[in-house]
Amino acid sequence: MMHIDILTLFPEMFEGVLNSSILKKAKDMEAVQYNTINFRSYSDNKHQKVDDYPYGGGAGMVLTPQPLFDAVEDLSSNRSSKPRVILMSPQGEPYTQKKAEEFSREEHLILICGHYEGYDERIRTHLATDEISVGDYILTGGELGAMVVTDSVVRLLPGVLGNDHSAIQDSFSTGLLEHPHYTRPREFRGMNVPDVILSGDHQKIEDWRQKESLKRTWERRPDLLENVVLTDKQKQWIKQWKMDK
Amino acid sequence: MMHIDILTLFPEMFEGVLNSSILKKAKDMEAVQYNTINFRSYSDNKHQKVDDYPYGGGAGMVLTPQPLFDAVEDLSSNRSSKPRVILMSPQGEPYTQKKAEEFSREEHLILICGHYEGYDERIRTHLATDEISVGDYILTGGELGAMVVTDSVVRLLPGVLGNDHSAIQDSFSTGLLEHPHYTRPREFRGMNVPDVILSGDHQKIEDWRQKESLKRTWERRPDLLENVVLTDKQKQWIKQWKMDK
Repeated sequence: MMHIDILTLFPEMFEGVLNSSILKKAKDMEAVQYNTINFRSYSDNKHQKVDDYPYGGGAGMVLTPQPLFDAVEDLSSNRSSKPRVILMSPQGEPYTQKKAEEFSREEHLILICGHYEGYDERIRTHLATDEISVGDYILTGGELGAMVVTDSVVRLLPGVLGNDHSAIQDSFSTGLLEHPHYTRPREFRGMNVPDVILSGDHQKIEDWRQKESLKRTWERRPDLLENVVLTDKQKQWIKQWKMDK
Repeated sequence: MMHIDILTLFPEMFEGVLNSSILKKAKDMEAVQYNTINFRSYSDNKHQKVDDYPYGGGAGMVLTPQPLFDAVEDLSSNRSSKPRVILMSPQGEPYTQKKAEEFSREEHLILICGHYEGYDERIRTHLATDEISVGDYILTGGELGAMVVTDSVVRLLPGVLGNDHSAIQDSFSTGLLEHPHYTRPREFRGMNVPDVILSGDHQKIEDWRQKESLKRTWERRPDLLENVVLTDKQKQWIKQWKMDK
């Protein structure tokens, strides 16, 4: 069973998320155990302070090393495996599905959620094994990032997704964006499902989906194509779209 | 006051997040109003179904258009301004701080959180005004993405961050990653704060910070430098680092 420890000043933020949908299911089937810990409880300070003014001046408060070092040390003791200690930070490595797959093979993750202006640099350099950013936008704290990492990792654990097919067919596992989906009704407020999808011709449908998947990627996320080896047919399609532009 | 409506099948996931920290503060000071709605309640279907099998075959279920069209129509009525209808989707435009700033100038956001295999394409093409992806990783549903958008937008609303300075000095607003921070104690388990930070020489400290900020960006996220106009001094530093490599 995977253990995920989450160090945060706002453990109550996690309740709804860890107790819904797939994350709840994974816990109930004992694929994972979650533990949200307020690291303020590890503070040596008589007022349980966890932050202090930055040396050298500047706005905001900085998280001090002591509570987080002691918390990680405590959570790592009596464990057979060394944990991955993951700092949620806008300065971190951009999070990707590949990283989620890597984390999903670990036994023990400790996710550290910062708040305030930042972490004392010694937390980065001597405590964390990984520093992760979920995107190029500014969030109030590391909590939402920790939820993103937890969700993306847990759904990869064996048996968690009922339908094993789902995880594989998802976006990014092919390197391309997904093709359009349609369901009933055939006509909704004058908008129709394309004929090809209703044709019953499985080969034609599959071709259409592959083409739409590539087209969508080419139009919206050309950066993703840099990591995909294209077939001659796919190259031909792109050439045609370029000419049609 | 900004209105944020969130359409989801799991409204309970949002409670902890919307009632903590800055998001709670923003609500309490009436800078924003949140409304989480289970769009199942809009389903015309007698069993309140919101999904159906994909036309053309394939794994997973697809969200049908009717409940979401009706929900958005209902939430948009009697409003002075048209809402931004934002679909959370891995096929969407990559979310950035610039997009957060754009959304923060709106009066009314409707965030749609998908689940299952995907949305009927007519929801994308005829209902959504924006399609947003918070990163290149696979999540169970759009809920965490909607929380990310909410948090990043609400903290930009006037008056929400007590210290106006904080939002400006954050990462990405300069285009560079942040410099290292240090706080007390000067020595922790044999790890010391760099002398320059303790020197009291403000100019020297500022220079060191600017240099470290650039160095960290150059080392970890060279892609960010493509959008920054570098000074001669900065170009000189990078030239030096390249030679030292």
